[in-house]
Amino acid sequence: MKKTEPAPKKPLPPQATIRRLSVYLRYLNGLDGDGVKVISSHDLARRLALNPAQVRKDLAYFGEFGKRGVGYSVKKLRDHIVKILGLQKMRKVAIIGAGGRLGTALALYTGFEKRNFKVCALFDKDPAVIGNEVDGVGRILSIEELPRTVKETGIEILVLTIPAAAIKEVHDIIMLSGVRAILNFAPYKMLSTEDVAVHNVDLTTELEALSYLLSLRESGLTSLENNLPADNE
Amino acid sequence: MKKTEPAPKKPLPPQATIRRLSVYLRYLNGLDGDGVKVISSHDLARRLALNPAQVRKDLAYFGEFGKRGVGYSVKKLRDHIVKILGLQKMRKVAIIGAGGRLGTALALYTGFEKRNFKVCALFDKDPAVIGNEVDGVGRILSIEELPRTVKETGIEILVLTIPAAAIKEVHDIIMLSGVRAILNFAPYKMLSTEDVAVHNVDLTTELEALSYLLSLRESGLTSLENNLPADNE
Repeated sequence: MKKTEPAPKKPLPPQATIRRLSVYLRYLNGLDGDGVKVISSHDLARRLALNPAQVRKDLAYFGEFGKRGVGYSVKKLRDHIVKILGLQKMRKVAIIGAGGRLGTALALYTGFEKRNFKVCALFDKDPAVIGNEVDGVGRILSIEELPRTVKETGIEILVLTIPAAAIKEVHDIIMLSGVRAILNFAPYKMLSTEDVAVHNVDLTTELEALSYLLSLRESGLTSLENNLPADNE
Repeated sequence: MKKTEPAPKKPLPPQATIRRLSVYLRYLNGLDGDGVKVISSHDLARRLALNPAQVRKDLAYFGEFGKRGVGYSVKKLRDHIVKILGLQKMRKVAIIGAGGRLGTALALYTGFEKRNFKVCALFDKDPAVIGNEVDGVGRILSIEELPRTVKETGIEILVLTIPAAAIKEVHDIIMLSGVRAILNFAPYKMLSTEDVAVHNVDLTTELEALSYLLSLRESGLTSLENNLPADNE
């Protein structure tokens, strides 16, 4: 018998597709909780204000799931998305700037653990907060202890909630700490390297994107509805 | 003399372009602060890890700014982006769920005001927190007072930091309050209407997008660097 041929190379999906997978997953979890067994791309799209062709295209990056005229098995599609997004295993997360308000809010946010991300260490560089106990997570450690903790604990993702001006100071210790991914909330665009993937989330950018829509409307150019983007697209 | 012809209709830019404008703006503000007068699309792109052609394409949606072989005037480009994003005037913002941790963190976040968004009212539905004073913003009001406050204060944007399960309860009062835009942090996709533009930001989605990159790497499919997306694309 012939050996199995390697699968033909598929193009990597765009980030917008990956983000929509996350939205599909959340919705599929809800459907599964409600006992729904099957959903069509049309219904999935309608509920999420997407185009059915877009939904099918997103899922087609990862193989053929649906049955024509029947739809997707809710459980199978959900399990497949979990696998694509690498969510079968818990990912360990640490927060840098845990003494600040946003850092504390994220440290205590219960939504991450439901989705298989565990905040398991907290860091800051301010001596005034180092040693403070955060309920259910632990004491805030000095940023100097980051590399050792990453190694011992298996932390993969850092969440940065420090001011933009503080990034330079901690940049090297963070990038060389052994983590593989960073979610940066500071309004300073950090760049990814070969070893560390960085996503930048600037909360003000979100407000500015809304301001743009308001401004369009004020100028009478268009109704808001014509500018409805898919999330994060 | 002939009357001026109306400008030919341009396609509306995608949301990814709008988000990049926000990133350009932040960077241009820094350059202007440093006294830099002119920047090329190449340098702008390099610093922000984008493709120069992408930068030129983004800006071309809004007219011709750069001089070939010279570059963009930092001040002019910045002022133009401010106008495109509707940031010449302050936009008033209210936070719903201000008694919660994320709500409090955002109410006290000083970065919004620097970028011309003013948090000027706070709401919650929990009687235990209504009436509490938040430094520099004011007392937390009952959600019932939202429509009156929107009308009196001219609030345009609501930031929702309530749990997904609480959205149903406040949905109608929010959508009918007279606001024009909503930034929703709850992990429940709210849909825009003709009157109200909604952007959904799910912080766990950001972690899931990073998990996807980690998973790709674990499977040996590709290096992280080949998957570097522009922010929010």
